[in-house]
Amino acid sequence: MTAVNRKIVLASRPEPDATLDNFRLEEGPVPTAAPGQVVARNLYLSLDPYMRGRMSAAKSYSAPVEIGGTMIGGAVARVESSTVPGFAPGDIVESMAFGWQDYAALAPQDLRKVDPDLAPISTALGILGMPGMTAYFGLLETARPKAGDTVVVSAASGAVGGTVSQLARIAGCRVVGIAGGADKCRYVTETLGADVCLDYRAEENLQAALAEACPNGIDVYFDNVGGEITDAVFQNLAMRARVIVCGTISHYAHGGAYSGPSLLRPILVSRAQVTGFLVFDWKHRYPEGAERIARWLKSGDLVYKEDVVDGLENAPEAFLGLLTGKNFGKLVVKVAD
Amino acid sequence: MTAVNRKIVLASRPEPDATLDNFRLEEGPVPTAAPGQVVARNLYLSLDPYMRGRMSAAKSYSAPVEIGGTMIGGAVARVESSTVPGFAPGDIVESMAFGWQDYAALAPQDLRKVDPDLAPISTALGILGMPGMTAYFGLLETARPKAGDTVVVSAASGAVGGTVSQLARIAGCRVVGIAGGADKCRYVTETLGADVCLDYRAEENLQAALAEACPNGIDVYFDNVGGEITDAVFQNLAMRARVIVCGTISHYAHGGAYSGPSLLRPILVSRAQVTGFLVFDWKHRYPEGAERIARWLKSGDLVYKEDVVDGLENAPEAFLGLLTGKNFGKLVVKVAD
Repeated sequence: MTAVNRKIVLASRPEPDATLDNFRLEEGPVPTAAPGQVVARNLYLSLDPYMRGRMSAAKSYSAPVEIGGTMIGGAVARVESSTVPGFAPGDIVESMAFGWQDYAALAPQDLRKVDPDLAPISTALGILGMPGMTAYFGLLETARPKAGDTVVVSAASGAVGGTVSQLARIAGCRVVGIAGGADKCRYVTETLGADVCLDYRAEENLQAALAEACPNGIDVYFDNVGGEITDAVFQNLAMRARVIVCGTISHYAHGGAYSGPSLLRPILVSRAQVTGFLVFDWKHRYPEGAERIARWLKSGDLVYKEDVVDGLENAPEAFLGLLTGKNFGKLVVKVAD
Repeated sequence: MTAVNRKIVLASRPEPDATLDNFRLEEGPVPTAAPGQVVARNLYLSLDPYMRGRMSAAKSYSAPVEIGGTMIGGAVARVESSTVPGFAPGDIVESMAFGWQDYAALAPQDLRKVDPDLAPISTALGILGMPGMTAYFGLLETARPKAGDTVVVSAASGAVGGTVSQLARIAGCRVVGIAGGADKCRYVTETLGADVCLDYRAEENLQAALAEACPNGIDVYFDNVGGEITDAVFQNLAMRARVIVCGTISHYAHGGAYSGPSLLRPILVSRAQVTGFLVFDWKHRYPEGAERIARWLKSGDLVYKEDVVDGLENAPEAFLGLLTGKNFGKLVVKVAD
């Protein structure tokens, strides 16, 4: 076991594109557990699009990472030492407050126990974690599709989008995914069971392709990307469409400030309802979501895909790939065995 | 009484700005009432922003006006002849299907009787008509502000915005209007009772002015204009803000296709809910809205302002003024005594 704690800090802010130079690997002492704390060893680090928002100084859900501060991020970890009743060495925990590092000292309110018998522990970062909860509460509780609705999902092969695609299928909807590349599209239709998947890289006119794939218009759009894909979708909304704004990852390629045609007119004409969604608002109901998803995993109705990168030192490069859609499945970094 | 029916037809489509050349005055015979029809004489013609949408061929709520077709529009009219039981010569009626003309033959389903004892009959086009219903159902039923909310209204001195401002005040909200010019702003605060009114023509930085006027953020935004004003508002949304997209009149100055910074990110960060609103969806509940508004008119809690232009031939010029905010109050054309 290493005697040092490696951590990846934010060296500088993207201007405007995120690059490897924005990150720096540092080494420091392994923390010890102060009273009321648990020290845990990172096993799997989660890489997620929201982290890009924290790298910039602009207003977002919460404060940006400070220059020189450890990159924020969730992890599945093993308890090494504990002064907290109920957490013992060897326990597997998940924490959103872990950070891109080997070890962290954490308060119990930032810890969630993971049952290793339920599913592989890395799923606590994926389909049984934040992305799965995002799909569950964003689609089923917020968009509330009804059977027969046409549901369009962007980033349809991703951690969130892949689960949304399947939940929409389970809910009796016509599912039209949007993804980048033939491999991802094949996965969305053949493995996830979507009716159609449009490859936005290959389509010359995505708006026309959506019109063809959704002859009765789009009742629900679960948006993980924003940008030009979203512009094309909004031109095909059905009356009383519901749009979940869950992520805007494509905007970062425009320096975080994408400009495009105003979406107000299609919202008005379709009497659409567009809702910003953040999964943390549903924290109090995670157990319900996880229980249902675990049931569908067990029955085989839901499947998931992971993209596992080895080694904490490779997290920055893997993260940059995530921003341009290079990963295929939920991206996690295997930090230790 | 004139023996001819004057009508204003759409001569050409705006490319991209609407001009006087897009309209043409024609004369034809006065229609006669076929079985099941009423012929009525136009007294007041309503001019409203939505008409601009019908001049273009682009997708909107309903089909565009054909080239050579009579401009669509609501009017208050007097029944001249009738083959429909319940409608007798001399009755005052309101019809959204009237058009920019002296006379129209109308089916009873397109007619609503107006009680001349309730209020001046022209109010059937304003605070007791479509604009008033828009304010009532858009604000109170769709945005559903609660006492203490900060409500921002664009075009706050207009037919819809002026009523929204007052309804928000009645509902116990902090009301911040946005209007063009010192006179309109004075009217919004002094007569309509808004707490603040920002003059978007005078403010160098509307976003900063809104931040100052709304220190706790904007809980409800009732948007009648779109464009840059809306962009500034979205940067000041409070958590769980509700936005009613009611009109996008400013987009017509951009050829109908305004481009600007994506609003997805503020929607996401604020977990806002943005809803397209069209008053016709609430037609079945107009009597309820009109009854409540009439009560507030009687008590003096609600006031209204009309901008009356004389003569059907002046409708095109008055309408172009409406698109650039030259009118002050609900714009109606007095067609006959």
